[in-house]
Parts: sequence; structure tokens; C-alpha cells
Amino acid sequence: MTKQAEGVAGRAARGRGRRPADEVRADVFRVVGEILLGEGIADLTFERVARLSGVSKTTLYKWWPSKGALALDGYFHAVEETLAFEDTGDIRADLLSQLRAFARVMTATPAGRVVTELIGQSQTDEDLAVAFRSLYSGERRRLAGERLRRAQEQGQIRDDVDVQVLVDQLWGAVYHRLLIPDEPVTDAFVTALVSNLIDGITPPSPTPPSR
Amino acid sequence: MTKQAEGVAGRAARGRGRRPADEVRADVFRVVGEILLGEGIADLTFERVARLSGVSKTTLYKWWPSKGALALDGYFHAVEETLAFEDTGDIRADLLSQLRAFARVMTATPAGRVVTELIGQSQTDEDLAVAFRSLYSGERRRLAGERLRRAQEQGQIRDDVDVQVLVDQLWGAVYHRLLIPDEPVTDAFVTALVSNLIDGITPPSPTPPSR
Repeated sequence: MTKQAEGVAGRAARGRGRRPADEVRADVFRVVGEILLGEGIADLTFERVARLSGVSKTTLYKWWPSKGALALDGYFHAVEETLAFEDTGDIRADLLSQLRAFARVMTATPAGRVVTELIGQSQTDEDLAVAFRSLYSGERRRLAGERLRRAQEQGQIRDDVDVQVLVDQLWGAVYHRLLIPDEPVTDAFVTALVSNLIDGITPPSPTPPSR
Repeated sequence: MTKQAEGVAGRAARGRGRRPADEVRADVFRVVGEILLGEGIADLTFERVARLSGVSKTTLYKWWPSKGALALDGYFHAVEETLAFEDTGDIRADLLSQLRAFARVMTATPAGRVVTELIGQSQTDEDLAVAFRSLYSGERRRLAGERLRRAQEQGQIRDDVDVQVLVDQLWGAVYHRLLIPDEPVTDAFVTALVSNLIDGITPPSPTPPSR
């Protein structure tokens, strides 16, 4: 967006007068999401978000005390729909389509860089680490856990499997390749993540001889 | 180690005169390993390593152009033996014992913090990212791949499984919990990582009725 367009958008937003908090937050999330997915975190500033959303910097700082909190909350909402968990009743198909969407966001938009930089910075910034868990990863874990537990109830995953471990072996495995890129995140990789867990990695037991 | 002890160790080392490069490097690795596993990366300085190993700072900088490179090379050698891959012929047992040793180093020594900080910093420091892959993660991947391929040759892992994906679903899953600590790295977690892959997560197929 050009500076001029930003100015117009900002004025239009301010022109609406006092709006319900939910509407204001939705505007902020939309603006933050557009910046993060379109440009990256370097271009995210309170100044610019205030101008584009028509929300005062004071209000922004009241709701999001740091750039990290603003980025994480905005990012969560920006990808919420793309990363939604379908339930077609087939856990293999549903995991595959969700993980493909996740891999696409991570590799084909600036989101991958945004998230890996936030994870990186959170190793030495405890406030950011807390914001990351409370505004992003904890909620993503909860949503994945819900879908996996439904599969468990439907008898597609064994009862004794801790579904939170699967979160680390699916999405965590993708993060591993994003953070330490020895190997690429490809479609074959995503497919293998799912089938290694659903099929197991050992050879099929020999068929008992028919008598 | 006290400053005084460090001085004595340094003088003793210098007293030996010109030593073979391998021996000098081994001394440096020992010193770097002791600092990283005992204290952490904040206490690692070229100054201190030079004093403790009796190797000149000029030589240190010639071999390791940055603190990151020195830390990664030293850390790789410090944990090489602890993280060695056994081959008892039973891949489940061997993965379990290696992953337990890995989890112990990561959670019970400052190494976990050292490695997560280096991964964190490498998100915005391209030189460190290259050093991380060439001096640490690439080689760890190669060693894990070797052991897993042997299991494949012995018929314990299916031929169509890409063993590099298993690296992400085992060690990568542990790194995920270390870097984004929503959930803890426990022994139950490590055990589940291995059994989810070896047994698969789906219920056993019903036994065909005997006729």
C-alpha cells in the first residue's frame, strides 16, 4: 500500500467515529495481518498500524503492550481461517490438507520468516516468549488437540496416544526444518510426516499362513 | 574454575611448547565443552578459552572466526560421545537410549539453553546459521541417518521411509518443545515419540476370524 493510500484508509477509518471494540480489533488484526503476510515484520510499526487502522497509538499500546504481542495476535487472526481444521471424518486426509496449508503459508509468504524470527527472539526475550505461547502456540496446540481427540473418539487414533505429542511430530517437525534448514519443507515431506505416524514405519507383519 | 586455577592450567598448557594441531584442537574443544555444559554461552569468551587452553587468541580466531563457530564446534565435540548411536540390533531400544541421553543433556545441563539461543540467534544471523548447519546439525543428521538406514537394511524400518523425515519427528520434536515450551520434555514424551512412529498411531487391524 502506498503512503497516500494509507493516509486515505486511515482518514476513512477515523471518520467512522467511536466503534465497538470488537470492530476496532478486527480492523487492527486485518492491517497487521496484511503487513505480516505481505511484507514482513520489519515493516510492522505501531505508527503505521495506527495510520492504517485509524486506531490511536494509545489504544494500540493499551491492548498490545509490545510489537511482539501486536504481531502475534495479528498473525494468529490472519492465519486462523487458512489453518482451520476440517473434519471430513478422515483424519489422514484432514491432517494432510491442514499441514499443506500450513507449509504453504510458511514457505510461500513472509509468514515463515516472521514466525521463525519471533521464535528466535523469544529465546532471549522472556516477555516475547510468554506472548508467543499465550497469543499463538498455546491456542494452535489446543485447536490441533481438539481435532486429534475427535479422531480418537472415532477410533482412528489409538486411545493410549497422547495427541499433544503428535503436535510436535507434525507441526513441530515442520518448524524444525524452518528453524534449522538442513532439509527443505516439501509436499513429500508433509505427506511423509502424516503417513509415518498413521501407518507406522515398520514393515507389515507377515500374513499368517492360511491353513 | 577459579581465575587462579585457570592461570595454572593456562601456564601448564603453554609450557608444553609446540604441539600437534590435533592435540591443540582437542584441548580447545575440552575447554569450550566444559564452559558450555557447566556454565553457558555467556561465559564463553575467546579470552578465557585462550587462557584455559594455552592456545593464542590469534590461533583461535584463525580456526574459529566467530564465537558462534567456536561454540558450535566445541559443543559438537563435547556431546559427541554422549549422543553416540548404539547398535544393539534393536532400533526401538537404541533410539530410546539415544533420545533419553539427548533429552538429559538438553534439560539437565546448560546445553539446552546454549543450543536454543544459538538457533534463536541464527534466525537473524546468516553466518551463524551457516555455522550451525555445517558444524553441528548437518553432522548430527548424518549420524542419525546412518543408524536409521542400518535399521532399514535389517528390515526394522520399511524401505520406502525417508529416514531424514524421522530426524524431524524425533529430535526435531524435542527441539520444538525446547524452543516453544508449551509442554515439557519428559521421559514419557521421549518414549511416545519412538512408539508413535514404530507402532503407528492407529488401532490394530481386527484379527481376521479363524474359519
